[in-house]
Amino acid sequence: GRAQGLPRVVKRRINALKNLQAEYAQIEAQFYRDLYGLETKYAAFYQPLFDKRSDIINAIYEPTEDECQWEVGIQKGVCEATESEPEGKPPVNGIPRFWLTAFKNIKILRKLIQENDELILAHLKDVKIKFSGVEEPMSFTIEFVFMSTEYFFNKVLTKTYHMRSHPDDSDPFFSRGPEIISSSGCKIYWKQGKNVTMKTLNLQQCAGHGSVVPTRSKVPSRSFFTYFYPPDSPQGRLLGVAVDYKLAYIFRELLIPKPVLFFTKEAIECNSDEEGHEAGGEEGKKEDKNEEPEGGPKKNLILVEDSTG
Amino acid sequence: GRAQGLPRVVKRRINALKNLQAEYAQIEAQFYRDLYGLETKYAAFYQPLFDKRSDIINAIYEPTEDECQWEVGIQKGVCEATESEPEGKPPVNGIPRFWLTAFKNIKILRKLIQENDELILAHLKDVKIKFSGVEEPMSFTIEFVFMSTEYFFNKVLTKTYHMRSHPDDSDPFFSRGPEIISSSGCKIYWKQGKNVTMKTLNLQQCAGHGSVVPTRSKVPSRSFFTYFYPPDSPQGRLLGVAVDYKLAYIFRELLIPKPVLFFTKEAIECNSDEEGHEAGGEEGKKEDKNEEPEGGPKKNLILVEDSTG
Repeated sequence: GRAQGLPRVVKRRINALKNLQAEYAQIEAQFYRDLYGLETKYAAFYQPLFDKRSDIINAIYEPTEDECQWEVGIQKGVCEATESEPEGKPPVNGIPRFWLTAFKNIKILRKLIQENDELILAHLKDVKIKFSGVEEPMSFTIEFVFMSTEYFFNKVLTKTYHMRSHPDDSDPFFSRGPEIISSSGCKIYWKQGKNVTMKTLNLQQCAGHGSVVPTRSKVPSRSFFTYFYPPDSPQGRLLGVAVDYKLAYIFRELLIPKPVLFFTKEAIECNSDEEGHEAGGEEGKKEDKNEEPEGGPKKNLILVEDSTG
Repeated sequence: GRAQGLPRVVKRRINALKNLQAEYAQIEAQFYRDLYGLETKYAAFYQPLFDKRSDIINAIYEPTEDECQWEVGIQKGVCEATESEPEGKPPVNGIPRFWLTAFKNIKILRKLIQENDELILAHLKDVKIKFSGVEEPMSFTIEFVFMSTEYFFNKVLTKTYHMRSHPDDSDPFFSRGPEIISSSGCKIYWKQGKNVTMKTLNLQQCAGHGSVVPTRSKVPSRSFFTYFYPPDSPQGRLLGVAVDYKLAYIFRELLIPKPVLFFTKEAIECNSDEEGHEAGGEEGKKEDKNEEPEGGPKKNLILVEDSTG
């Protein structure tokens, strides 16, 4: 690096700065712990809103006329009072396929969710996040709460992400902050013949002399539910660690806090890996892009102009 | 959007969720205000380390032998005790060109800094951040502290970024969080003939009938110091708002907290706009990239393996 060409006295001073930088990292780790405490505190403040949201989605609570007035929406023509119900159809309870629809408006999830998965995810009642206690090792758990399904016996599927919360020898500068270091899922108790993470292949095995013996073999199948499998299992390996950790971010920062904006497509991911960069990477456009966090953490959504206005 | 094809009763419920989402944004704004309070609190904790750093860089304090031991560094061969000083050279005070070198290891700054700028930035003593009080409108100021130079009379150049701290009508969901909404620089009192943000063009003006009249004209010149000009001034326009706000992020999140890691190139920006995407954007490589924040804010550095080990 740069330090190689410097006089020895300067290199010594650089080392002194690196020691200060390691001290900084110790204080910064405490900052992140306080921030974590702040997040768990606010999680409790958000919970009543999330509970009410769940009650509306699952037809436990019917919002009043007042609660359904969306002023900004009315101007944009989202709430057409003149529209009449189609006749002869049964009444719709709650908001069907709410979470599945929101999921599918995020590209990485859309690619992961297969046809069979949709049949199951249509029964998703709620998606929650639980933080570990401030004194415990830092972790958070995503809970997927299901109505009873014909696919598995579990009512709740969980995925836990474990985080590094302090600098260590591998990174005394704590340069990545409190990153995820591992994840663990849960065992899914599939009902007979309903395991969508495995598929049956019908093979024809050569028995020599031109005769074939039909055999069947179970192999891992692409499915959203591989998300819950250990990363070293045949199913878990299909997902990959990078996608696994990215899903943590998507559930924690986007889908659990603001799912309705994904349901309506009013928000999209502000994510260079996703929608953005695929359109092309011309040099000249760079200054117009706005992918950087600007002054604060958690800038992850951008609002899309409603084209119906 | 998605909502257009839905029965009216479902659209009403979606509106109710949007109202809950706007309520969420109000609580979230308070979270960001608490986070801001936390950042200002920790800024005070970091300050003694920053002051000592500045004293070492500027030869006000010479670190002790103990303070210059960098354990991790020793193993990697950064601190070669056998290396002797070149003879006949004057002793080096502090760490010359510390900030300039760190700046130039960040691509967007490297592109901005011209030869004349380097002569000035070599005299940079310190770069600081000051946060507004928690009760004031949210803003932060980057301070560039200079040794006296032959270029301008200022001892300190400042740039202030003003932030939106609450949801408003244009974004009731506060979907971008507390973003920067404007910035303001400072007047630079250039010494005679030393303004590096302007250059003199020698033009030859046609006076008709084949005769030319030599004239001189001052025009804005590409320079790091355009950073301090109002965005609607001829010089300020050269920078562009996107670059301006990105520099806010770079100074606040990378250079002020961790400049030595950029000086030594131990850290690089984890930034899709910069080093990353230029190498190419093949689909297959996507899962190997690691550009997403993973579980917490402020994941902006990645450490580079030291190749000298």
